Amino acid sequence: MFLSKLIKVEQALKTMGENLKITDTEVIPLEDAYKRVLAADIISQLDSPPFSRAAMDGYAVKAQDTFNSSPNNPTHLTVVDEIGAGKISHAVVKEGHAVKIATGAPLPHGADAVIMNEYVHEEGYELQVESSLTPGENVSFQGEDIKKGKLIIKRGKLLQPQDLAIIASGGYNEVNVYRKPRIAVLVTGSELVMPSPNIKGAEVVNSNHYTLKGMVESSLAVPTLNHVEDNAKKVKNEIEKLLITHDAIITTGGTAISKGDVVVEVVEQLGEVLFHGVSMRPGKPFAFGMVNGSPVFMLSGYPVAAMVQYDIMVRKNIEKMQNIHKPPCTVKKTAARKIPSTLGRTDYVRARTDGDEVVPLNIKGSTIIRSMVDSNCYIVIEENLEGVLEGEKCDVLLYDILRV
Amino acid sequence: MFLSKLIKVEQALKTMGENLKITDTEVIPLEDAYKRVLAADIISQLDSPPFSRAAMDGYAVKAQDTFNSSPNNPTHLTVVDEIGAGKISHAVVKEGHAVKIATGAPLPHGADAVIMNEYVHEEGYELQVESSLTPGENVSFQGEDIKKGKLIIKRGKLLQPQDLAIIASGGYNEVNVYRKPRIAVLVTGSELVMPSPNIKGAEVVNSNHYTLKGMVESSLAVPTLNHVEDNAKKVKNEIEKLLITHDAIITTGGTAISKGDVVVEVVEQLGEVLFHGVSMRPGKPFAFGMVNGSPVFMLSGYPVAAMVQYDIMVRKNIEKMQNIHKPPCTVKKTAARKIPSTLGRTDYVRARTDGDEVVPLNIKGSTIIRSMVDSNCYIVIEENLEGVLEGEKCDVLLYDILRV
Repeated sequence: MFLSKLIKVEQALKTMGENLKITDTEVIPLEDAYKRVLAADIISQLDSPPFSRAAMDGYAVKAQDTFNSSPNNPTHLTVVDEIGAGKISHAVVKEGHAVKIATGAPLPHGADAVIMNEYVHEEGYELQVESSLTPGENVSFQGEDIKKGKLIIKRGKLLQPQDLAIIASGGYNEVNVYRKPRIAVLVTGSELVMPSPNIKGAEVVNSNHYTLKGMVESSLAVPTLNHVEDNAKKVKNEIEKLLITHDAIITTGGTAISKGDVVVEVVEQLGEVLFHGVSMRPGKPFAFGMVNGSPVFMLSGYPVAAMVQYDIMVRKNIEKMQNIHKPPCTVKKTAARKIPSTLGRTDYVRARTDGDEVVPLNIKGSTIIRSMVDSNCYIVIEENLEGVLEGEKCDVLLYDILRV
Repeated sequence: MFLSKLIKVEQALKTMGENLKITDTEVIPLEDAYKRVLAADIISQLDSPPFSRAAMDGYAVKAQDTFNSSPNNPTHLTVVDEIGAGKISHAVVKEGHAVKIATGAPLPHGADAVIMNEYVHEEGYELQVESSLTPGENVSFQGEDIKKGKLIIKRGKLLQPQDLAIIASGGYNEVNVYRKPRIAVLVTGSELVMPSPNIKGAEVVNSNHYTLKGMVESSLAVPTLNHVEDNAKKVKNEIEKLLITHDAIITTGGTAISKGDVVVEVVEQLGEVLFHGVSMRPGKPFAFGMVNGSPVFMLSGYPVAAMVQYDIMVRKNIEKMQNIHKPPCTVKKTAARKIPSTLGRTDYVRARTDGDEVVPLNIKGSTIIRSMVDSNCYIVIEENLEGVLEGEKCDVLLYDILRV
């Protein structure tokens, strides 16, 4: 039977988490860093804005010159220069002076506010100001967004487009990130063939090849795809070879107790199987081992079981290897009908949700790929529950949020 | 001022949607198809399972032989063969016969059920059966998952890992998908420089280069990055050149009315500007044009305005070019404080949400990149609202769900 007693989902996740190593880091161009994980704090090398600048098109002035201005009592100033974006003026704004200025241009010395075009009349060099300004009005001050020497973004952040902008504004065009884990997918099964319209006899299409490539990609890691027959020596050679060039291996098949199910035994020979069998459904025959310091995640051969095992048992670990720590992402939805479950086992029921309601699919068995395609979430029924009643709120994991 | 009257957000989206073309299609290896959009219906070329097979390890039998079996009244059968996974037996199961069978192996002729190992005793060739079976028990029948000749997945699906599995099981190792749109990002601005610790004078870091690369990638399209000075002739040449090799252009800068803001005028010369100015905040100076049948999305130069314009005005269109039609993804959250707004204008308030509450950030202005990094959502205040009260439910767009 199983090599160890069935363990609980939480215990399985804990055991795996304790055995993982974070990948090493690498420096990459900042423009390639979307969805990479920052491996070092970023301290700004620059102020942003780099200089105090006009936030509007208008005229740079001394605010105090305008304190009593109104349409009935306009102030008259002399325009002494003009500054376009990207240009600098060496003019100094003295009492009674103004400098025409474009949005984004550096505020000239002496000025402390910008009056918008709407509130002035210009005639030749004479400017008539019809409203009063407070000091700082329509000015973006040097360093008000980012200050040189300050922490602007922390190690461990999964970088979003706007994070790249702030790192650039801090003066960096490269960034230090965790290397994407290289994950070997090793599908076992002598009966498996690649898809074609002419499969014969007892051949079965190797669909896990495709599901797992997508799954690993949806964990932001880099998969390679491999296949081996159900032969202990060949499986052993393959695992040893793949471990040289990969950070982890995900196998499918060979975890049950049929004749020819050899994967768990081979891993036990090569290293250590930390557990075999988890009290979950589907996906019970999941096993986890360590070989030469690298994790081997052993999934079922059945497509649905393998998918659930990946989502529940493997995904979080591939994320952790990149130092990604996502918050739990279950949401509460209303069950459209009663779902029985067994105490002591966690059930992951393929279901479809739209709005607040979630409908469990009417399909059993690990062979029904259709149920993976028709569902968009799992209803999670924890081990301490005997099921969910119709109309009851239940925990739902949306595929779209789990996967990226 | 603006080339057209400000138009409403909905009208802007409608106008753009009417002017877009879906990209052509291409055939790619199925294993590379995660997150691609299917361009043709998939009709299965195979039954799945390809043959009726054992769903459990056990013995293939005629169910009728077991109808009266119990631990006190066992049935005795003769084991005539054994079938491993991937193997075929030519034995025919006759009355009184059984064939030992592994999970997944083809059911031999004559058998219609599988009895699990737990309910039998085997001694030599004799099998003692201690429970009764119904016909079909523990058998996965040929075609019960997928039937040859039937539609298994529809054109337009954004492919998930499990979709690849069902397409493979239908006998395909390649798939017809929409080509990813090639999007030229053209950042305009003579003052812009690439990040370095030594920026000088009126230079400003070109942060849009980075934000927009990430944004376009988060729309599943392929960006190229380009920069040009604020010079009408150069901008014109660049747009003409980029349109040859791209499906669309996104510009930043040059949409306001400052001297040197030339982009909208150049697009008007090259083709047609369909609108310029949208009643939204931030992001009002957004413009949209068509040149030689290709869309030109004209964004502000200010980083925050450009980000919001991308998320609200551009993203949906880049998705549509790949035939992706996502349902609306606003969620309802409770406003942590009052947010004023102006009737007739749609506001996108950078905010932070955690659980049910959403807190608007206390930052104004289009220059504050920090506010993009500190926020994780927009509060959307529609044009017919004068704001949101403290404790009121409001519409929220989560960055994580908008972006992929």
